[in-house]
Amino acid sequence: MLGIKQIASYLPDNKISNYDKKEKFELDDDFIENKIGVKFHALKEKEEKASDLCVKAFTNLTQKLSINKDEIDCCVVVTQNPDFNIPHTSAIVHGKLELPQNCACFDISLGCSGYVYGLSNIISFMKNNNLKNGLLFTADPYSDIIDNEDKNTALLFGDGATVTYINEDGTFVPKDFSFGTNGKDYRELLCEEKLYMNGRAVFNFAATTIPKHIEALLHKNNLENSDIDKYVLHQGSKYIVDTIRKRLKVDESKVPFDMHEYGNTVSSSIPIILEKEIIKEENRRFLISGFGVGLSWGSAIIEKV
Amino acid sequence: MLGIKQIASYLPDNKISNYDKKEKFELDDDFIENKIGVKFHALKEKEEKASDLCVKAFTNLTQKLSINKDEIDCCVVVTQNPDFNIPHTSAIVHGKLELPQNCACFDISLGCSGYVYGLSNIISFMKNNNLKNGLLFTADPYSDIIDNEDKNTALLFGDGATVTYINEDGTFVPKDFSFGTNGKDYRELLCEEKLYMNGRAVFNFAATTIPKHIEALLHKNNLENSDIDKYVLHQGSKYIVDTIRKRLKVDESKVPFDMHEYGNTVSSSIPIILEKEIIKEENRRFLISGFGVGLSWGSAIIEKV
Repeated sequence: MLGIKQIASYLPDNKISNYDKKEKFELDDDFIENKIGVKFHALKEKEEKASDLCVKAFTNLTQKLSINKDEIDCCVVVTQNPDFNIPHTSAIVHGKLELPQNCACFDISLGCSGYVYGLSNIISFMKNNNLKNGLLFTADPYSDIIDNEDKNTALLFGDGATVTYINEDGTFVPKDFSFGTNGKDYRELLCEEKLYMNGRAVFNFAATTIPKHIEALLHKNNLENSDIDKYVLHQGSKYIVDTIRKRLKVDESKVPFDMHEYGNTVSSSIPIILEKEIIKEENRRFLISGFGVGLSWGSAIIEKV
Repeated sequence: MLGIKQIASYLPDNKISNYDKKEKFELDDDFIENKIGVKFHALKEKEEKASDLCVKAFTNLTQKLSINKDEIDCCVVVTQNPDFNIPHTSAIVHGKLELPQNCACFDISLGCSGYVYGLSNIISFMKNNNLKNGLLFTADPYSDIIDNEDKNTALLFGDGATVTYINEDGTFVPKDFSFGTNGKDYRELLCEEKLYMNGRAVFNFAATTIPKHIEALLHKNNLENSDIDKYVLHQGSKYIVDTIRKRLKVDESKVPFDMHEYGNTVSSSIPIILEKEIIKEENRRFLISGFGVGLSWGSAIIEKV
């Protein structure tokens, strides 16, 4: 069945320390470690673009399993920081990876909910077009659009990319998805020249909407909290991950928190964690949930075959 | 079965005449009428954005059939000229149309192949997520990125938008799709600050790749030219539409040419023609084909239920 065969990611080695910004922004260690939960954020080279990060994630994928590039027939990039607006970044990745001509390529523009949507999108598209081997990339290099003087965003976001290899031999298969949108509040997270984020509004949205949304998805699938081995939540900040976890009444051990060393990587946050968790024998059923820009949210239940 | 229930479009009333540019660009009437095939190109108001054009297309849709907005559970926008890069334009359209919270919204970044991809995307996504009523928008206002001094692009492109209403009660259903990409040549159609197009390279790509691609799709489906009632080709220029038609050995009456009065509307070119053709009783099977930015192409066979 079409599903996740493997995941790989790329995080730049260059890490910026938030401890170095304590004076500038009047921060204490508790804020850094427990409120935002970002000690260091990963920073790409200035001239690197989304497609470059995708290629590096792909290189890491090929170190995990052998990929016959001639068999790749679908290539999707989830990004809101494309190399250019014209053409789509997936075409550039297609060229750089020398993928075959019969490969369908398209970009999906979504932010923090992008991996969940993208997973549904690529599997649905491949299934209905009888495609066999797909690459789902996420890459949203926010460092290009961050105002380094803006405390709301300058401490939080990290650069990174992931690739998820989808084929008929997938070991983790999505069972059900659920999506939602509140477009009226789109201005709370907006990029005109630089990124603007109303942190309080986005937090309130996530804290009120997401727990109910996750509970509804579990209920629809006749599942309880105890049936989920791991909840992989978008790593917006430590405070939001903790808040959603508490409202769901789920034990901390079931909700990985992982962004301390690299920051909020937008659509890459979920697959970066999934990469680590899918190889653990005890994890047979995941709930993944992404939320943010749009405002948009999406969740899925993913099960081991 | 999920398919096209209705299509509506919006073209700005404001039309710029290419006859007024004859002196500036040293043009003759034959070039305007038979080479590019654009007498006038449609121009939006300067402050209008992609989401505004989508809303106008939706208003035109509601004049054709009654839509219960509370039942819309999927909203997709195909564009490479979004309102902003963050958030996706479909979220803004969602807000402006006051669509419900359980509506899945995402943008697809593709150019002239975008409608074909978008149609496959929305139907696949809706089918696999059990969604019932979808809106597929196309809107690529190129006037924002055109250099009015560049003869290669300043005469050709027009602004416009379309919306395709997808539901279980669709009257035209896609039977098969085929897609292709040549990402190595992406620089032939590129927007850094303003749009750059290598017209000759794009023409050569389309003239050599697309006829073979269409013939292969027909062959795969055991269809001959005579089985197709209308070929709806992306309206890149009159010369490219004529060239593909001749190479396919298809009679002119089967290949609508329609861009004279509004120009190349990118991903909207196919649905603008389909809107007019699906209401004609004699048309029971279409072949649609889009090609351009990427370089990317996609074709589909669409049949009346």
